[in-house]
Amino acid sequence: MHIPQEYGGLGLGTFESCIVTEEISYGCTGFQTAIEANSLGEMPVILAGNPDQKKKYLGRMLEEPLMCAYCVTEPVAGSDVSGIKTKAEKKGDHYVLNGQKMWITNGGVANWYFVLARTNPDPKCPAGKAFTGFIVDRDSPGVTVGRKEINMGQRASDTRGITFEDVLVPAENVLGQEGLGFRLAMGAFDKTRPPVAAGAVGLAQRAFDEATKYSMERKTFGKLICEHQAVAFMLADMAIGIESARMVTQRAAWEIDQGRRNTYYASIAKCLAGDVANKTASDAVQIFGGNGFNSEYPVEKLMRDAKIYQVNTSKNVQTNCKIK
Amino acid sequence: MHIPQEYGGLGLGTFESCIVTEEISYGCTGFQTAIEANSLGEMPVILAGNPDQKKKYLGRMLEEPLMCAYCVTEPVAGSDVSGIKTKAEKKGDHYVLNGQKMWITNGGVANWYFVLARTNPDPKCPAGKAFTGFIVDRDSPGVTVGRKEINMGQRASDTRGITFEDVLVPAENVLGQEGLGFRLAMGAFDKTRPPVAAGAVGLAQRAFDEATKYSMERKTFGKLICEHQAVAFMLADMAIGIESARMVTQRAAWEIDQGRRNTYYASIAKCLAGDVANKTASDAVQIFGGNGFNSEYPVEKLMRDAKIYQVNTSKNVQTNCKIK
Amino acid sequence: MHIPQEYGGLGLGTFESCIVTEEISYGCTGFQTAIEANSLGEMPVILAGNPDQKKKYLGRMLEEPLMCAYCVTEPVAGSDVSGIKTKAEKKGDHYVLNGQKMWITNGGVANWYFVLARTNPDPKCPAGKAFTGFIVDRDSPGVTVGRKEINMGQRASDTRGITFEDVLVPAENVLGQEGLGFRLAMGAFDKTRPPVAAGAVGLAQRAFDEATKYSMERKTFGKLICEHQAVAFMLADMAIGIESARMVTQRAAWEIDQGRRNTYYASIAKCLAGDVANKTASDAVQIFGGNGFNSEYPVEKLMRDAKIYQVNTSKNVQTNCKIK
Amino acid sequence: MHIPQEYGGLGLGTFESCIVTEEISYGCTGFQTAIEANSLGEMPVILAGNPDQKKKYLGRMLEEPLMCAYCVTEPVAGSDVSGIKTKAEKKGDHYVLNGQKMWITNGGVANWYFVLARTNPDPKCPAGKAFTGFIVDRDSPGVTVGRKEINMGQRASDTRGITFEDVLVPAENVLGQEGLGFRLAMGAFDKTRPPVAAGAVGLAQRAFDEATKYSMERKTFGKLICEHQAVAFMLADMAIGIESARMVTQRAAWEIDQGRRNTYYASIAKCLAGDVANKTASDAVQIFGGNGFNSEYPVEKLMRDAKIYQVNTSKNVQTNCKIK
Repeated sequence: MHIPQEYGGLGLGTFESCIVTEEISYGCTGFQTAIEANSLGEMPVILAGNPDQKKKYLGRMLEEPLMCAYCVTEPVAGSDVSGIKTKAEKKGDHYVLNGQKMWITNGGVANWYFVLARTNPDPKCPAGKAFTGFIVDRDSPGVTVGRKEINMGQRASDTRGITFEDVLVPAENVLGQEGLGFRLAMGAFDKTRPPVAAGAVGLAQRAFDEATKYSMERKTFGKLICEHQAVAFMLADMAIGIESARMVTQRAAWEIDQGRRNTYYASIAKCLAGDVANKTASDAVQIFGGNGFNSEYPVEKLMRDAKIYQVNTSKNVQTNCKIK
Repeated sequence: MHIPQEYGGLGLGTFESCIVTEEISYGCTGFQTAIEANSLGEMPVILAGNPDQKKKYLGRMLEEPLMCAYCVTEPVAGSDVSGIKTKAEKKGDHYVLNGQKMWITNGGVANWYFVLARTNPDPKCPAGKAFTGFIVDRDSPGVTVGRKEINMGQRASDTRGITFEDVLVPAENVLGQEGLGFRLAMGAFDKTRPPVAAGAVGLAQRAFDEATKYSMERKTFGKLICEHQAVAFMLADMAIGIESARMVTQRAAWEIDQGRRNTYYASIAKCLAGDVANKTASDAVQIFGGNGFNSEYPVEKLMRDAKIYQVNTSKNVQTNCKIK
Repeated sequence: MHIPQEYGGLGLGTFESCIVTEEISYGCTGFQTAIEANSLGEMPVILAGNPDQKKKYLGRMLEEPLMCAYCVTEPVAGSDVSGIKTKAEKKGDHYVLNGQKMWITNGGVANWYFVLARTNPDPKCPAGKAFTGFIVDRDSPGVTVGRKEINMGQRASDTRGITFEDVLVPAENVLGQEGLGFRLAMGAFDKTRPPVAAGAVGLAQRAFDEATKYSMERKTFGKLICEHQAVAFMLADMAIGIESARMVTQRAAWEIDQGRRNTYYASIAKCLAGDVANKTASDAVQIFGGNGFNSEYPVEKLMRDAKIYQVNTSKNVQTNCKIK
Repeated sequence: MHIPQEYGGLGLGTFESCIVTEEISYGCTGFQTAIEANSLGEMPVILAGNPDQKKKYLGRMLEEPLMCAYCVTEPVAGSDVSGIKTKAEKKGDHYVLNGQKMWITNGGVANWYFVLARTNPDPKCPAGKAFTGFIVDRDSPGVTVGRKEINMGQRASDTRGITFEDVLVPAENVLGQEGLGFRLAMGAFDKTRPPVAAGAVGLAQRAFDEATKYSMERKTFGKLICEHQAVAFMLADMAIGIESARMVTQRAAWEIDQGRRNTYYASIAKCLAGDVANKTASDAVQIFGGNGFNSEYPVEKLMRDAKIYQVNTSKNVQTNCKIK
């Protein structure tokens, strides 16, 4: 959806993307995460790629049902991106890439990767200049893909570690220019945070709908459980959370589509939507009672899927909020 | 603001009204409630008054700085409006009004009242037909105003009980027609709930700004308290709450301005904004520490003022939400 | 542990039982639930069995590593026990048992069952007289065991549906007397609620210890994550929850061991411990970050296991609390 | 209660003290805080006073209804005691005391003060050695008492600033020895934290009882409000909070009475009880509805009184918890 029309894409905005994302997530956030990972991987190319890079790597994504991946996280550098150890050394017209990435969504199925690597070995060099973003073909010699991680939820999504061992990357695959990588990697988030929040909203809406439906069919103590006030209040709180999370998500998307910096709203959206998704899914299980704990019913999956939206979020994001 | 232009008012919508309300509430919600009570009192006249009633009673409000009041609540009928005991009996071209109202904002300073009274004595008559709305002049014989109530907060607002004892109300002061009162009294809420929510948002914004400012001046353990992560997270949570409450409030206002029923969004806005105002004010006191408990500092007032937004709200409102 | 010494058991009190339970649950609550289900199944026999029944069915449990099960819950009667449909009709010196039970822990591995069935068909007969408790041998003709339920957590525990079709139960297997079943089934909870709460406390303690340990090894932004104040406060809240939940659990156990009715304390303990276990496990996943979502790390299991303690609890229990 | 029997006191333990404190707080926490401030002021004398000091200053408290005060907090040093600026310089057999104390409970009515002052001017001197504790007579020249602070709640308690200007304190009024002050001031908390927590529990119990009583008298929508499930659940949550807070409070008292360090349990008790008191009082106002906001009803006072228990607490205390 994000790929510009001149390269054959739909060229849709973040706002439209959020609407689509919410609907897919209503079905399954594992699928949605796998799809979203493509946007995240493509985003640095969209933001800073030259026409040749765009034509080659974005165009390919439209011709065939291919996947790509965003390779930033490392074993000791999660949300703290500046701690990244993977390095790329220039040798002639190539860079030699060495390092280990972790929790890479689409890791095992991607056709190419966006990889963030340190190109300036001086530890005093600021993060804004020390890193460079590369496009790396999956079939480059030296790329090894780890086993699929078994996670609590979102199991439809393929998450793996990836090792780069003396991988030769042509200099023409540098995105933007050397030293620009950190800004590119972070900039990708401005456009992809709102869809992540939309994913959480979609999950919450699903949990709410399932719980509402169940509460209008199931009886205890002689009445429908939705008629028990404590259940009705839980449902009301779900509605409050979902509507407000959806509005801030769409606001964050709208801001970036208007060309304004959206970090403040995007952080709020991601943090709120993640919390709402978790509370809503957990309360949906509660409303289903013992059935909610059972995998034959739809809500235990939602509770397992939801947690990743909170894990990925609250730390940085809340800190961002304060620096309006 | 609500009074139509043909009667000399600004004829503004609920959306604009919310923006103004939020700013006044930033200053003092006690003042805001006193002002808002005029809108609430006028609203049944705006909704169902005939041209003469509008000219006389709305026009008067614009010529002088007069107040009016909305007299619905009674000692044993708060949010449960259908339990109202005040009654009006038709005698010739007058109604004889008897009963007791409670918690009437502007009670002691109003020039005229909107009064809801039962006109059909049959206890089986449904609420939608049993009540009638009247305009009652303050100086009518038989109107007695009680003493000012001392409340936890919003002390700038004048709240009193009012007793009606054989008050003669001319039949021409019936709003709409006999039996329409309940619908009028409830209909007024559709337009006044969003401003009440906006009042809570204004209070929350004030608490947030005061707490942020204080946290950037006050040091403990050798650093500014905003640099303590737990304080920064409290501030972030305030921002999340305020932004989302503001958006749903404006959405609720927008819906009614577009002529669509807004009960669902207005209920969400009032409930969320009330909760956000209370949490934000209480956390602002926490950030001020011991100083927050002291009346020389601005936040203890905010905490006392905030509670009324929660008291008035959550019960009905949450129940409304579920019947989307 | 509960089985009296005269029948070869340890004859320990509920207090001691809670201490042991907490430790086993620290290891795995799935195992603990399987073990606890034996206590629950045996409890009606301990409370109301005659010497022959005790000798035969409790004695057997000590001679071999056998399991038993408590069969009360049905598809449409969970916490609302009075809705039970399984019925037993007396024919000569046997009862003919027909019905379907659900969510039976140890269902597939039990040697015998405690079964609650309606013996008085009159729908006006009060619950306290309409039901009877039976001991049913697993190998009785007509007993069919369903497939193992796949649950979100506590997968070590075997939960199944059980169908009784014209099962002949000898009259000597009635516990106490006809009509006493409801009181027996409920009475069993007085002694087994505290251990269930202790299970939740053990799980919470495990999550707390894992999170504390991890937070003292893992660094982000140049310092140990336990030195981030927001993480330290999460750990502090865990400690507050665990200590208070443990104390009320032990109080509830102590009361019943002293022969006093413990419904009030047991309800508080179960509700509080269930909430603490869920919050602690979810926050432990949060502290582990992305690793917390992964099944290689110990905390996602704890979060999945914890939910059952909340599902089983809050509804009835909170209502009980108010009728101190 | 704390004063040893050899000096004429009751010599009761912290456990007994908590029981008495909870009952007084049930009546009014403002009174309780005024009474408790005496214990806090006396505690350093009990802990480290010599027989002459004890006889003179503790004995006096028993002969007449006198008050004393604990003077530690300063404008820029609240919970961060090590930032204290008040200083005492030795001149002959006296110390010259200069500085300003703030938020001193009983400040205007005390007969004598415990004062913490810096005696070692070297900024590198550790807190454990830099401060000394003094007994200062109220009528010493140079002692000036500020105006009574108007606080949100606990208005029965007299809180003021106190200025010491060249106050001559005889060397015989040093407690323990020079440099011991910090440890004394902190040590006093070990015995006074549990009663503060007990005060919060007493307030919560009062709010719970008032709300329960009201909910069993007041009807809305045709039934008692305690029969609305959401109200019943609020009451249940109050009971859960109060019982668990009381148990940890009594445990913290018990530990110190047994001669064991109680910092861990006392911190948990103070933090939990403060939170429970605030939630319970706020929910009690909610249950009273509009009446709860009015000063004719008992609960708005409780909500205003409660906040100080949270303000004084959570910051340090939660940090303490983690260092079990």
